Amino acid sequence: MAESVERLQQRVQELERELAQERSRRLSGSGDVGGGRARIEKMSPEVVDSNPYSRLMALKRMGIVSNYEKIRTFAVAIVGVGGVGSVTAEMLTRCGIGKLLLFDYDKVELANMNRLFFQPHQAGLSKVQAAEHTLRNINPDVLFEVHNYNITTVENFQHFMDRISNGGLEEGKPVDLVLSCVDNFEARMTINTACNELGQTWMESGVSENAVSGHIQLIIPGESACFACAPPLVVAANIDEKTLKREGVCAASLPTTMGVVAGILVQNVLKFLLNFGTVSFYLGYNAMQDFFPTMSMKPNPQCDDRNCRKQQEEYKKKVASLPKQEVIQEEEEIIHEDNEWGIELVSEVSEEELKNSSGPVPDLPEGITVAYTIPKKQEDSVTEVTVEDSGESLEDLMAKMKNM
Amino acid sequence: MAESVERLQQRVQELERELAQERSRRLSGSGDVGGGRARIEKMSPEVVDSNPYSRLMALKRMGIVSNYEKIRTFAVAIVGVGGVGSVTAEMLTRCGIGKLLLFDYDKVELANMNRLFFQPHQAGLSKVQAAEHTLRNINPDVLFEVHNYNITTVENFQHFMDRISNGGLEEGKPVDLVLSCVDNFEARMTINTACNELGQTWMESGVSENAVSGHIQLIIPGESACFACAPPLVVAANIDEKTLKREGVCAASLPTTMGVVAGILVQNVLKFLLNFGTVSFYLGYNAMQDFFPTMSMKPNPQCDDRNCRKQQEEYKKKVASLPKQEVIQEEEEIIHEDNEWGIELVSEVSEEELKNSSGPVPDLPEGITVAYTIPKKQEDSVTEVTVEDSGESLEDLMAKMKNM
Repeated sequence: MAESVERLQQRVQELERELAQERSRRLSGSGDVGGGRARIEKMSPEVVDSNPYSRLMALKRMGIVSNYEKIRTFAVAIVGVGGVGSVTAEMLTRCGIGKLLLFDYDKVELANMNRLFFQPHQAGLSKVQAAEHTLRNINPDVLFEVHNYNITTVENFQHFMDRISNGGLEEGKPVDLVLSCVDNFEARMTINTACNELGQTWMESGVSENAVSGHIQLIIPGESACFACAPPLVVAANIDEKTLKREGVCAASLPTTMGVVAGILVQNVLKFLLNFGTVSFYLGYNAMQDFFPTMSMKPNPQCDDRNCRKQQEEYKKKVASLPKQEVIQEEEEIIHEDNEWGIELVSEVSEEELKNSSGPVPDLPEGITVAYTIPKKQEDSVTEVTVEDSGESLEDLMAKMKNM
Repeated sequence: MAESVERLQQRVQELERELAQERSRRLSGSGDVGGGRARIEKMSPEVVDSNPYSRLMALKRMGIVSNYEKIRTFAVAIVGVGGVGSVTAEMLTRCGIGKLLLFDYDKVELANMNRLFFQPHQAGLSKVQAAEHTLRNINPDVLFEVHNYNITTVENFQHFMDRISNGGLEEGKPVDLVLSCVDNFEARMTINTACNELGQTWMESGVSENAVSGHIQLIIPGESACFACAPPLVVAANIDEKTLKREGVCAASLPTTMGVVAGILVQNVLKFLLNFGTVSFYLGYNAMQDFFPTMSMKPNPQCDDRNCRKQQEEYKKKVASLPKQEVIQEEEEIIHEDNEWGIELVSEVSEEELKNSSGPVPDLPEGITVAYTIPKKQEDSVTEVTVEDSGESLEDLMAKMKNM
């Protein structure tokens, strides 16, 4: 009898343990509750229903990519795991990227359910934790490193810089690419500062507050314009960010626009890492008219960021040291980039809207306007520079700013 | 002591029951294991973290959509719940569409994991069943009707026609839109036949076999070219579909391209249903060069589909009965559509590739080529019509075909 009680007590303990495990799997916020697939040592091109890489390895047979399996050797950092960042992370995970580093300090809310990826039962969890669970289940071959903090604080910035420099696939090596999927000016400027200092190539992405336009941008420090050289450009309504922070006011968003921006961002990442197609320096998306402007921008020699200016000097030296043939090729490529398809940019932003912008506004091609403006400081009001219809160049404006 | 044993036995039973429940919730194949949100009677614009519609209703405040909540009054049928269809369904679900009807006869496989939406633990389940579980959990306000069958068989075709005609939000009313997200010629032709007969507006979508281009197309029977008027056009490699069915050969696919195509498709659906922006009749996506051609095509007066010709007659009568002012406006709109942005189409398909195509090839603008060709019959070989560099129009070719 005593034995029986002991056995029953053991059984109760066992069951309680199992139940707790089941519950934690279910409530882990992942929605992905086991039953996932086993790890795969080597990517195979074999065409069987059980091979999750068959359709990707087929890119080799189709003549698109010569070395698809190289995807496993890359580490990509994603800052911001919201509407664009989460889908970006999922696409790279499904493509079999080597390692993902995710940075976000926000929590999942039901108000995020109008965009892809997160599910209602994850509400309240940290975005990076919820994302890691889901992504690990989708592809256990990918390595994940997540950081639940705000990169813009001094302390976290140092750690962020350290992980960009050392968090590569092999610890101690830098990551291969940083992707900015954040929704505010300060975080973009922070990523820009870090990447200029480290000479780290990165890609910017953004969606307008009215949800119907977005863009991606490739920034190679010293070679293309950085975020401080000029506010990034996009065909978008020009609303000061601060207006979005007011109580009871929030930006609109759509799963469509964010899905398209994540799609063109990760496509650019794949082309950049696996060396196929034309990598875009800038690609915009105007959903109202199905208009996709492309362009490229040279860095500003008077950029406020001294590390940008330093990178520009180094890039100049590098180009000067190349055999002449290669330099010419490079120039041609840039021209090619500029207006390959003869696409004309057409204005959709009124002069009035442009006047209402704050911060330095560069001399832009017709129809291109700034997506982000520098938020006005609230206490010590900085004198505002607005451009009405002047022919002033970016350099003139920057010089003016410096003399204030 | 006896009491204690009984209590323990009861406790074991209780725990076993709870564990079984937890397991069944976990293994229901949904990945969405409860913990979802409650239903919401009325869409609210209130800006609180718990409101899943706040960012969508903000489209009204931003001046983009005048009547966002009208989304709940629409029913959309999606044929094909694969790489494009599943993401399309998820986007519409998150946007709060009234009702979705899903048609597919395929099962989820690990080989699908390189695209968004399905998860490894769903392998083996029917696509429509797995999708319904996930989507219901994401948004319990949407009504779902799923059909696990192939629409191209005679019997299922009748049922499909019936559901298009009667499966609207209110039973007995037609759906508002049909979306084709299938991956083969036969299924597209079947949808085309049904929609021509019913006068049902639909949208086509497709991704090329090499995974780096795709398109969407709006077909309004009688008003724009149907799928039988001319093979739909896309800037894509021109590979005969039959070659894809060979043992050991499969098409490549990417989550990026499919995500972009689903994004532009659903964006077009939202613009069409909620009446904002410019609805595209055709939008292509060339991922290699980040090139997005747009165009529109008039129906072929000699289309093989007699219901298409009938719809054309009815459309002509409708236009003729309109006051003159409106007719002119319509004409202007079409011109506007044609080359609004002055985008030039540039060829990326060689003459050689075009020669290898089968089926009637229309007289296309330079740089536009056919995405789908009519599969060659294997037993009774139909004489093949190929276009080399002739100036023959589509009508000439169709007439030739008829005289064979």
